[in-house]
Amino acid sequence: MKFKLIVLFLFSFNVTIVAQNDQEYIQKIYKESLINGKSFHWLNYLSNGIGARLLGSLNAELAIKYTKKVLEELEIDRVWLQPVMVPKWVRGSPEFSFIEVAPGKTIPVNLCALGGSVATPEEGLKAEVVEVNGIEELKAMDSADIHGKIVFFNRQIQVDVISTFKAYNECLNQLYDGAKEAAKLGAVGTIVRSMSLRLDDLPHTGAMSYGNTAINNRIPSAAISTNDAERLSSMLKIDSSIKFYFKQNCKQLNDVKSYNVIGEITGAQYPKQIITVGGHLNSWDLGDGSHNDGAACVQAMDVLRLLKLIGIKPKRTIRVVLFMNEEKGLRGNLDYTKFAKENNENHIFALESDSGGFMPSGFSFQGPDYKVRQIFKWKNLFEPYLIHYFEKAVIPTDIGPSTNKSALLADLITDSQRYFDHHHASNDNFEFINKRELELGSATMASLVYLVDKYGFNSIEYSSTVKD
Amino acid sequence: MKFKLIVLFLFSFNVTIVAQNDQEYIQKIYKESLINGKSFHWLNYLSNGIGARLLGSLNAELAIKYTKKVLEELEIDRVWLQPVMVPKWVRGSPEFSFIEVAPGKTIPVNLCALGGSVATPEEGLKAEVVEVNGIEELKAMDSADIHGKIVFFNRQIQVDVISTFKAYNECLNQLYDGAKEAAKLGAVGTIVRSMSLRLDDLPHTGAMSYGNTAINNRIPSAAISTNDAERLSSMLKIDSSIKFYFKQNCKQLNDVKSYNVIGEITGAQYPKQIITVGGHLNSWDLGDGSHNDGAACVQAMDVLRLLKLIGIKPKRTIRVVLFMNEEKGLRGNLDYTKFAKENNENHIFALESDSGGFMPSGFSFQGPDYKVRQIFKWKNLFEPYLIHYFEKAVIPTDIGPSTNKSALLADLITDSQRYFDHHHASNDNFEFINKRELELGSATMASLVYLVDKYGFNSIEYSSTVKD
Repeated sequence: MKFKLIVLFLFSFNVTIVAQNDQEYIQKIYKESLINGKSFHWLNYLSNGIGARLLGSLNAELAIKYTKKVLEELEIDRVWLQPVMVPKWVRGSPEFSFIEVAPGKTIPVNLCALGGSVATPEEGLKAEVVEVNGIEELKAMDSADIHGKIVFFNRQIQVDVISTFKAYNECLNQLYDGAKEAAKLGAVGTIVRSMSLRLDDLPHTGAMSYGNTAINNRIPSAAISTNDAERLSSMLKIDSSIKFYFKQNCKQLNDVKSYNVIGEITGAQYPKQIITVGGHLNSWDLGDGSHNDGAACVQAMDVLRLLKLIGIKPKRTIRVVLFMNEEKGLRGNLDYTKFAKENNENHIFALESDSGGFMPSGFSFQGPDYKVRQIFKWKNLFEPYLIHYFEKAVIPTDIGPSTNKSALLADLITDSQRYFDHHHASNDNFEFINKRELELGSATMASLVYLVDKYGFNSIEYSSTVKD
Repeated sequence: MKFKLIVLFLFSFNVTIVAQNDQEYIQKIYKESLINGKSFHWLNYLSNGIGARLLGSLNAELAIKYTKKVLEELEIDRVWLQPVMVPKWVRGSPEFSFIEVAPGKTIPVNLCALGGSVATPEEGLKAEVVEVNGIEELKAMDSADIHGKIVFFNRQIQVDVISTFKAYNECLNQLYDGAKEAAKLGAVGTIVRSMSLRLDDLPHTGAMSYGNTAINNRIPSAAISTNDAERLSSMLKIDSSIKFYFKQNCKQLNDVKSYNVIGEITGAQYPKQIITVGGHLNSWDLGDGSHNDGAACVQAMDVLRLLKLIGIKPKRTIRVVLFMNEEKGLRGNLDYTKFAKENNENHIFALESDSGGFMPSGFSFQGPDYKVRQIFKWKNLFEPYLIHYFEKAVIPTDIGPSTNKSALLADLITDSQRYFDHHHASNDNFEFINKRELELGSATMASLVYLVDKYGFNSIEYSSTVKD
């Protein structure tokens, strides 16, 4: 009993000392980010100076050159490009679409091709419409009711689910697998209600897949705005024989060479222990991709700058990775994983942001329990900065497969209520970025990276570090 | 020891039952608000159908009529207008301002008169400028350096303070008291850097006061945009003899009659126990006042609608009060307090929102400790809705003086990072309101009102209620 008390006393004594020191460093990080942050300036150039960064596009190349240059100017230890082959899909000329109420009587529709879709015939595609409330409803239908028609997926994102990401994921399959399933039943095309929580005129694109559908059986697939979806649905209730027309000449080209952009400060004590921080550099083509995922790219670059500025000499290697190809198959990420294995690197921690440059509120973590337990102890260091969620979760997208199994993966949580108003649409642009929120995000990521670098995850090392 | 254990068991058992029931009601409130909320629709009319609601203006009258009609359509027990005399200040024709680098060589400036300011002479006011970093710096100066000049208050809101309200309040006195203090030293006018955290071209107005300065000694006072403040400051460093010109013909008129708009559901069991929820209906004149404080007005009205819709028959009287005159002297509020006293009403709880229609994150409370302790126990009921701050604080503005000393005052906390980008400026308008965030705010307020109504604050009553 006596022994236990002493241990507890020592433990709390150490924790207090560490916390004071860490509090000061974290305060410096936030202060520097809010007063002299570079993320907003860099994002302005990435968004307004370059613009949308569709995979394999000229703009994507320009973004690679620009971010490499920014990293080089930070005078860190190493900056390089990792080659990666990426799929190249082009939208072609602007889509054209209408509802035909009667011959010659048409109502225009805001439509965009889904990423990966085939084109319509050159003269466009016109057919009757079958509305379905999601992919399960379609699967239960008879092919006689679908054959020769355009399937209209009109399942709405459930607005009373507080987590917009959860609500979005629940009906994402109608966008991703819709064309594949509709083709099986003889549909000639699919249109999907835009995956947005609000009513407006903007179509939202996104990646769709034909799976193993034979090339000749692939049908064109597009999204229409939520307002148009409401209108079409109302009109179909009155007259189910109205026709829908759309024309798109998008095309899947051969894969092209592109690059992940990587920069690092090499660890002074444990150079083979790698901490990564990043996002994906590619974007969709309708907006300039400021929220998805330009914000994360500039925040990740600013993490290195902030740590340098406050005078940290990292013990471990801290690496920014701007992945090429998140949205369509994670190719950049898989190649990065291969590279890490070949170099026998030990990735101990991987942090990404892919929820926009909105107000940060916490982190999701996935990984070994002892690492999660350790990191949760740091939560109170973040409370003065309105960061209050430290939660376990399954981390998707960019960083997921990139690391060894023992790595702790982390995702920055931001206020997600407005995210899907902009996601994959023409209003994902710099105008909707708030400088202060972006800078708070950079500082939040930098602070966590600072702590992981300082203490690492080895429990023995942790306690010895605590003492110095 | 045994006794204690039993008590604990009973207590946790009861709490569980209550929580389940309450969880369901609160879920209904959020669901109804997000699916069929009216706050966004009402605010659209208040902002775009009516517009800015300066005290004593025609628009303020229209807003009174409109909100009264909305409340009447809710078919609640009682809707009425409470007369209140309000100060009437008018901006007059648009202000005009420039920096004069040399005779005939001028640079235009974005300027607006501060609320309550006197006009400049008809031909405008031109003088040399003395820049000061806040009111304390001014007070330490010699009148010889100020006499005949325009004092330029250029203290910046400190951007590395995480709470924007705290940062704002720290330098608000240069706006509020600046003219009064400058006049004592013989200044002929004052201009103040807009109280915004970002650099842009928008001047932000706000209420200033001459205190007991004699009428003849009152000097005109205005705000200039942050970009203009930066420019002027840089130019003064190069040439301190440059002149500043501004012309404004604003005017303080006689007080006019206006109204607080009040509606209530009368309590079935304790009609004299009053719960109020509200905001201020007046706004500044540059924007349409959507965030300040139109959002709170429509949210408060929706609280009553939401409680009716989910089938609550309130035990206590739940009253919406839309105060006229928050920004300039709290007159509407003082009159309401008088009314409450005359009617021998027992105000047990007063909730307001005055931080914009941004994402809600919690509540601040001020009042008797036993009430604060009780309400803190409900915090976990709000966690599924991302409401995580329950904190003690000093509550300012609208509801502060309106209630008996035993009342618990509460303020909705929202994400404040963007608030001062819009505050008192021409971009405080409906375009910057997010429907979902507004509706989450309504639901959050309604949920707390639901709990206070159900349990009240009497500890004896609380435990007996828990059992039923």
